[in-house]
Amino acid sequence: MTPTDAVSTPGPAPARPRHTAAGRRTRERIVKTAADLIFRKGVAGTSIPDVQQAARVSASQIYHYFADKTELVRAVIAHQVEQTIAGQQPHLDRLDSFPALRAWRDAMIASQERHDCAGGCAIGSLASELVETYEPLRGDLAAAFDRWEAPIRAGLRRMRQDGVLVAEADTDQLATALLAAVQGGLLLSQVRRSSEPLRAAAEAAIGYVESFAA
Amino acid sequence: MTPTDAVSTPGPAPARPRHTAAGRRTRERIVKTAADLIFRKGVAGTSIPDVQQAARVSASQIYHYFADKTELVRAVIAHQVEQTIAGQQPHLDRLDSFPALRAWRDAMIASQERHDCAGGCAIGSLASELVETYEPLRGDLAAAFDRWEAPIRAGLRRMRQDGVLVAEADTDQLATALLAAVQGGLLLSQVRRSSEPLRAAAEAAIGYVESFAA
Repeated sequence: MTPTDAVSTPGPAPARPRHTAAGRRTRERIVKTAADLIFRKGVAGTSIPDVQQAARVSASQIYHYFADKTELVRAVIAHQVEQTIAGQQPHLDRLDSFPALRAWRDAMIASQERHDCAGGCAIGSLASELVETYEPLRGDLAAAFDRWEAPIRAGLRRMRQDGVLVAEADTDQLATALLAAVQGGLLLSQVRRSSEPLRAAAEAAIGYVESFAA
Repeated sequence: MTPTDAVSTPGPAPARPRHTAAGRRTRERIVKTAADLIFRKGVAGTSIPDVQQAARVSASQIYHYFADKTELVRAVIAHQVEQTIAGQQPHLDRLDSFPALRAWRDAMIASQERHDCAGGCAIGSLASELVETYEPLRGDLAAAFDRWEAPIRAGLRRMRQDGVLVAEADTDQLATALLAAVQGGLLLSQVRRSSEPLRAAAEAAIGYVESFAA
């Protein structure tokens, strides 16, 4: 799997590198190890030799799969957004009612509380670190947020179709507001080591969606 | 000025180092230069020699004012929160009506649009980069967000006192939701290079506050 398979990018699909099953597992181990290191120490604080050592692979193995650190980071972004989305299932697949929105919020709060609100959002942290310093990756970061926003958007649209929300509700704008509230709430929760900011932010965004209830 | 003068921290006020007027100007130039470099390249991407060169000072001058990089970064956090707050005046001093909240939102949007939504939030970027990697600075980051949230909180309390908001409105929670919406909105706007996420996020948070109008 190339990173661009996992995030929607414009243009034709890139040729899929043909790796053996063992090769795919090695590549996956490298990406997962790099993602874990970067989550803890940031991209700037994680070197290719760090990844080599932690994943128990050689430099040539890493460079077999990734031309350079940027390509590895690109794969980490794609990996983290898929992990984030997988971690929020089954909620994200059916955000089409107010109880479903609140259950999603509660699951995110519980997830933060399980590790004392440390760590924050893997996507948000990558975005904040990379968006200005690794300009070539801005498209990957935007695609990661789009990927996460898509199910939120789809759920709200279904609520409008089903007549739960009024026809005038701008569900795309509401989806962006929900994602922004989650991002900001996660960052404040991380800094304050308390789930209260995430709860307050998500409650406000969901409460605003409720103001469009039919 | 020590960094702890600028942010509210518990405990007794630290002794204020006595510098001459020229010394204070040199210290200010170092902090401002470091803040600019860090805003563009991150803390990990900014070395003490980078700051020296850009501020045209010697290493011994930097170490005269700052024991180490952590102390310099601490001063940068305090500087950036004061800059952020100064940049949002006079709005932050009178966030005590719905028109005032919308004028604040519009000023933030205009500010982002002036530089094509690049750069994002200086405080949010520092927080995201440092909160897990520089644990000793977490208190400074929390104090920076508290410092920014205080005038939002004060404005909402006045709205409740004045009967603009109902007595049941939890103004502290609403203030946190507003700050989180701004943070998340700024990050999404930075990644998408569009002010729309900030607009959507702030509108949702202000709209939620409106649901508590008396």
